[in-house]
Amino acid sequence: MKIENLEDLFNHTLEDVYFAETKLVKALPKMAKASDSPALAKAFMGHLEETKEHVTRLEQVFKMLERKAKATECPAIKGILEEGEELMKEVKDPDTRDAAMIGAGQAAEHYEITRYGTLISWATLLGHKDVAAILDKTLKEEYAADDKLTKLAESRLNKEAA
Amino acid sequence: MKIENLEDLFNHTLEDVYFAETKLVKALPKMAKASDSPALAKAFMGHLEETKEHVTRLEQVFKMLERKAKATECPAIKGILEEGEELMKEVKDPDTRDAAMIGAGQAAEHYEITRYGTLISWATLLGHKDVAAILDKTLKEEYAADDKLTKLAESRLNKEAA
Repeated sequence: MKIENLEDLFNHTLEDVYFAETKLVKALPKMAKASDSPALAKAFMGHLEETKEHVTRLEQVFKMLERKAKATECPAIKGILEEGEELMKEVKDPDTRDAAMIGAGQAAEHYEITRYGTLISWATLLGHKDVAAILDKTLKEEYAADDKLTKLAESRLNKEAA
Repeated sequence: MKIENLEDLFNHTLEDVYFAETKLVKALPKMAKASDSPALAKAFMGHLEETKEHVTRLEQVFKMLERKAKATECPAIKGILEEGEELMKEVKDPDTRDAAMIGAGQAAEHYEITRYGTLISWATLLGHKDVAAILDKTLKEEYAADDKLTKLAESRLNKEAA
């Protein structure tokens, strides 16, 4: 894809986030399965449902912009999930593994937070106010998912790992 | 490195962030050089000085914990910087390239924000209050760097790209 202006850059980043969300739809059930804490497993499964909705919203945005929904490989989210998967396999102690997965989940959330923030800013500048409003719904849910993981980290999970 | 408990996980993540900060020390001057906007170049160079200080602080933390300062390859930051470098090369229009680099810079900031947040939470749980205080100084500067980029993005840069 040739990027010649902000509209192209916006479209490229939309495809990047679409890749990230579809990768997360595959990663979250694995993370839930590997969780020792039922509360953590529940948080990952709850966010899986939201993530599926985020994919649907992105498809809606592609449609509104009269573009085909397309995923462009994104090395950042691949790297983030790769790190998480390595820890999932390497860490044998269940509480420490849960702490590691919370950290990995939060890294993924922050990647999405920064990308959606950028997309919303560009959509606004490009005059796509309806698109910005849809992306903002998702951004709010990513912030909430990150907060939920912070609360889980601060509760019993990490204390037990220590 | 075998990760058997939260202390090991903390040490592993410290080495991960040390890798990320040293990578950023190399990436920021390139980003400043590729910036069309003098304000953006200045922001990247200003953050370079802070980043060098973050490296020094991490070395201080390693010392406090009686560990050797060591970098562990971190696929996440590699992926984030790889994406940024690709855009730096591919995007020919100066204003669009600046917008892309702001996005890449914010992705790096958010990666550090999530990692320092996690490290501070674990340091506190492990009773390393002095370490948590040092890491918190850096976290505050990462938030400020991210805010600065948001402001630059919202000002003339993106408008010109549009």
